[in-house]
Amino acid sequence: MDSDTASPAPAQLPVAQQSSPIGIFDSGVGGLTVAGAIKRLLPHEPIVYVGDLARVPYGGRSPATVRRYSFEISRLLLERGAKAIVVACNSASAVAVPALRQEFTVPVLGVIDPGAAAAVASTRTGVVGVIGTRATIESGAYEEAIHRLNPEVRVVSAATPLLVPFIEEGWFDDAATEDVARRYLTPLLEAEIDTLVLGCTHYPLLKPLLRKVVGTNVSLVDSAMNCALALRDLLSAMKLAGPVTSREAPFQVALTDAPGNFLNVAAEALQLELGKVEAIGVPAG
Amino acid sequence: MDSDTASPAPAQLPVAQQSSPIGIFDSGVGGLTVAGAIKRLLPHEPIVYVGDLARVPYGGRSPATVRRYSFEISRLLLERGAKAIVVACNSASAVAVPALRQEFTVPVLGVIDPGAAAAVASTRTGVVGVIGTRATIESGAYEEAIHRLNPEVRVVSAATPLLVPFIEEGWFDDAATEDVARRYLTPLLEAEIDTLVLGCTHYPLLKPLLRKVVGTNVSLVDSAMNCALALRDLLSAMKLAGPVTSREAPFQVALTDAPGNFLNVAAEALQLELGKVEAIGVPAG
Repeated sequence: MDSDTASPAPAQLPVAQQSSPIGIFDSGVGGLTVAGAIKRLLPHEPIVYVGDLARVPYGGRSPATVRRYSFEISRLLLERGAKAIVVACNSASAVAVPALRQEFTVPVLGVIDPGAAAAVASTRTGVVGVIGTRATIESGAYEEAIHRLNPEVRVVSAATPLLVPFIEEGWFDDAATEDVARRYLTPLLEAEIDTLVLGCTHYPLLKPLLRKVVGTNVSLVDSAMNCALALRDLLSAMKLAGPVTSREAPFQVALTDAPGNFLNVAAEALQLELGKVEAIGVPAG
Repeated sequence: MDSDTASPAPAQLPVAQQSSPIGIFDSGVGGLTVAGAIKRLLPHEPIVYVGDLARVPYGGRSPATVRRYSFEISRLLLERGAKAIVVACNSASAVAVPALRQEFTVPVLGVIDPGAAAAVASTRTGVVGVIGTRATIESGAYEEAIHRLNPEVRVVSAATPLLVPFIEEGWFDDAATEDVARRYLTPLLEAEIDTLVLGCTHYPLLKPLLRKVVGTNVSLVDSAMNCALALRDLLSAMKLAGPVTSREAPFQVALTDAPGNFLNVAAEALQLELGKVEAIGVPAG
């Protein structure tokens, strides 16, 4: 088990089985990049996704608040039978994963460790760039995770807080977006990174533009895809992988507040069929 | 009284007096432009400001959620003895002011009616532009408020969601900010507006850049300043104006979560001395 403590799961939670769904949460809609990557890799696994739109973004909030919100949403996923919890949000991954592992008995996977592992595997020059929201970068979580794997890798980070608003506007292929991205990335390119970790779940949607900015000599590490790969291995190792069938498994999306324009922008860009999106209340603490 | 109902104030709330503070709230830090304008106009009035950073931004949330949050924060201001409530947030002004007036007996003032009145007074050509967050623009609240005053004024609106992130980055005088602002404003200038309402409490911080973009023939209506002027009149009319002294009255700022970089950016730009910022819990519903 993935927990450091002996505390049992609260009695009222359903027991997770191989056929149980994967629970995924994010502060909002950006984590659909992670859900989309998991769905593509493991189409036979049922998925329950909760976006905490009533309290998005987690990025600017204090670690204690992010931990509380993450705990509340995770509990909600467990009430729906989740056999594993994927924290599809860099801010929550940075500060809440260890606490969630302490509290719950199902495996908990964030996006940071898989991204860090992929970056360490990718770099040849030993200089890795990381971009993310101010909160993620200030937490130093990627740097720490990379240095746990290889203390000799040099990590050059930049907070790039304007990229999310551009993405939420749907300005994926746009001169202003490119101008801002170039300004953010120039110091990293000057530091001669050969690998760039996209440390925010929104950023995979901007991959073509970022590719244009960094050129072909820099590998882009997409934390969504690496998280999906790590989840597949984790489910196998823990004998929690669902039975492989040819049918596509259900993909449920529930949101704690009404979605804005970005839900459609993201679903279209990710080619995700969302079906009926469920509206749920903000869970009590 | 400003209330439509006969419901009395709950017994446990202190009774508002002339010497009581003005209560101001916003979803975050942007409303400090309104607090700053009130402080400059009425330096002898004590102010309590609450920024609901744990749940910022209100902009993308559903009207029901924004009303609930506004109710909770207003109650908190009343518990601190507020004699009037200023809703220093366009999203909350757009959807919550009538409900707050129904619920509470103290006067409640939003930023939209004063801004609309100033725009109607300013326009010569009868074509007024309004910019704001997507939520504010989609609510149609400015258009409605302007048409209540003069149905013949033509209102041309544009959602300008990227301006807040630029302002929060502190990129006030920046080519990328100017480029984005110009793109947003070009259709309004082509529609020959002679007045532009800055329909978001962040935007006064961007006034010099916006002035550059719109030229000298367009009046900029700063909702923060107009809200302060309307508050002064309202307090006088209701005999709630505090005694004028030469001493500067206390200015208390309380936030429901730890502030990020933008608190310092805003305080510096507004030349506001914040003193000790209080951390408070998110109020219960």
